[in-house]
Amino acid sequence: MSTGAEDPLAGSSTGTATFDWLDTRSAARAKAGLSRTLRPRPESATVLDLASNDYLGLTRDPRVTRAAADAALRWGAGATGSRLVTGTTELHAELEAELAEFCGFPAALVFSTGYAANLGVLAALSGPGTVLITDEYNHASLIDGARLSRTETVVVPHRDVSAFRDVLANRTRKRALVVTDSVFSVDGDLAPLSALAAACRDHGAGLVVDDAHGLGVIGNGAGAVTAAGLAGAPDVVVTTTLSKSLGAQGGAVLASPRVIAHLVDTARSFIFDTGLAPSTVGAALAALRIIRADPALPGRSRAVARELAERLAAAGLSSSTPSAAVVSVRAPSPTSAVEWSQQCRAEGVAVGCFRPPSVPDRVSRLRLTARADLTPAEITTAVDVITRTAPPAAVAH
Amino acid sequence: MSTGAEDPLAGSSTGTATFDWLDTRSAARAKAGLSRTLRPRPESATVLDLASNDYLGLTRDPRVTRAAADAALRWGAGATGSRLVTGTTELHAELEAELAEFCGFPAALVFSTGYAANLGVLAALSGPGTVLITDEYNHASLIDGARLSRTETVVVPHRDVSAFRDVLANRTRKRALVVTDSVFSVDGDLAPLSALAAACRDHGAGLVVDDAHGLGVIGNGAGAVTAAGLAGAPDVVVTTTLSKSLGAQGGAVLASPRVIAHLVDTARSFIFDTGLAPSTVGAALAALRIIRADPALPGRSRAVARELAERLAAAGLSSSTPSAAVVSVRAPSPTSAVEWSQQCRAEGVAVGCFRPPSVPDRVSRLRLTARADLTPAEITTAVDVITRTAPPAAVAH
Repeated sequence: MSTGAEDPLAGSSTGTATFDWLDTRSAARAKAGLSRTLRPRPESATVLDLASNDYLGLTRDPRVTRAAADAALRWGAGATGSRLVTGTTELHAELEAELAEFCGFPAALVFSTGYAANLGVLAALSGPGTVLITDEYNHASLIDGARLSRTETVVVPHRDVSAFRDVLANRTRKRALVVTDSVFSVDGDLAPLSALAAACRDHGAGLVVDDAHGLGVIGNGAGAVTAAGLAGAPDVVVTTTLSKSLGAQGGAVLASPRVIAHLVDTARSFIFDTGLAPSTVGAALAALRIIRADPALPGRSRAVARELAERLAAAGLSSSTPSAAVVSVRAPSPTSAVEWSQQCRAEGVAVGCFRPPSVPDRVSRLRLTARADLTPAEITTAVDVITRTAPPAAVAH
Repeated sequence: MSTGAEDPLAGSSTGTATFDWLDTRSAARAKAGLSRTLRPRPESATVLDLASNDYLGLTRDPRVTRAAADAALRWGAGATGSRLVTGTTELHAELEAELAEFCGFPAALVFSTGYAANLGVLAALSGPGTVLITDEYNHASLIDGARLSRTETVVVPHRDVSAFRDVLANRTRKRALVVTDSVFSVDGDLAPLSALAAACRDHGAGLVVDDAHGLGVIGNGAGAVTAAGLAGAPDVVVTTTLSKSLGAQGGAVLASPRVIAHLVDTARSFIFDTGLAPSTVGAALAALRIIRADPALPGRSRAVARELAERLAAAGLSSSTPSAAVVSVRAPSPTSAVEWSQQCRAEGVAVGCFRPPSVPDRVSRLRLTARADLTPAEITTAVDVITRTAPPAAVAH
């Protein structure tokens, strides 16, 4: 009970002390090199972009921006409500049909974000009778989806198929979902999708794959699940995003019609969220059509990634071996990663700087996006700047 | 262990049975009148809209759609990454500054959706040492935010200030957050914000208010928190949306600079999500400027709501007493609510149909949006159609 000034639960007359505890946390983050600052970018790029997720360079493609503009002018600036009320336009349905067809699934459902798609899928397809078995390096939105599902979740070592099989075989709950990224976002390594699908098939489990970094990049662009021969499998559910290769915003789920119908009826992040704005629906549709018309485009981003990684490794840096359009380079500490990325920026090259909690192994890194439209000269510039600004401890001797 | 065909955990060779359990759930929902269908709408409205959340009629305002189009052409179709990496443009910063200024808070932060804003705020501002005290009618995104926070959550009766005070006074945890909608989304009734703020102040608690249905509608449009004299209070955090009165998409948080800095550093739905697309940022900014230039606009939506409610009540229907731009009318059952809304639509008036789980008291309703730009003739048409198609059990005798 609050009885006087000595009581820690008693308030003040001004309320200024209520959030004092945030200052302690802020100081601790600053000391650990984990403070973040927003850096608004200007309209015209002043640096070479190797930091975004614009893998195919489509977000500023005039065909895509024009489609976004046209959709806003024709359909309105917003979806105006939940997709279940007024928030579904014929443009949403068109994108869903074309995305499903391209990826080889019978149905698709667009969410307002990829994050919302993961939250919705994991809660709607699990429940008390289900165990979720998830890769330890999965994206935060899959982790949050597992938390929101409020069911048993077992985290297994990264890409360890036998660990997934052990949990599947020894589970006490009737239903199971194996949950994995297809392309892990920090290092760009691939999940063993075929082996995981076989494990699921052997044990009557569903497989949920987040293909956010695979769509538009792996195979002909239809993504890692399709490239693994799993397109349209009745026990496979794919989540993905419209904000990376497709240059727009939003998320999507690819699955069987009964899974999609179940999501429409029960996925809270679908039912209770405003639909995706028409401008971004139109942009994603235009980008999808560009990828379908140019099957070589995804391969170019992967080739750029391999070249970047090889040249950085040759310079003695600890580079990842890319399977997609992401290359990471290890840094000695969070603080040195920040300084390194700032020096790159000062020399005209924007690179991602990933620190905890954005790196599951707590190793800070530079993260480079291998855009399909990087020129040979731009690749050389990027390699030169990253190498020249590297802290001594990042270079092998 | 999986040992043979009799084992319920053993899989099949085709995987077709994995999601069989969804069919049982689907049949149960159909029997209860709780199946949902997406109904894509055409480019040009064919019905009178009383179903959207476009309270001020701005989503198709040429000034807003033109701003969306211009932003896509100038800034690109997507934000290209997390707001912490490449996803913050100067346009985002401009919207944040103007929104904060209009609402009387020192700082603002834009999220990709209002849902994401609520998830981010509740998890980042709570933790093990905190109890969340939430109104039983709060929106799903606040409920999911409380679940994701993984801390103690106490649900109190709707708008019951003494119940909030009891929990605050008797809590065992040091920190507490009172969490409420400002305008409850189903009936449009107001939270007792001043009394809740006083309770928080007395007990050293923070107050988190979701003003999604208040921004643009309450007072001069600056929302219910500002109208209650709480703008800029150091112990108050406001979440809101850009997808209702502002006609676009996205969410925002209004708070003190230290709360905003804490969210930038720790809110998972901010850090791990792609930033809001420039087109919707531009649209929201244009809509905000329209509201600021026309302080009478919010009052028109409230006046339309009162007129709708009075005329429906006069016809014997069980209408809510609106304080904002939402009017609800009770229906006898989920099935009759669906049929009623379908008959309205067949006669040219689109109304919302809210059934469980979208209604916290499980009473199905029609939900009407009192758009500020509804004409007297349109209001008469809406009242006539809703009254004429009402099921007999919905009319008082």
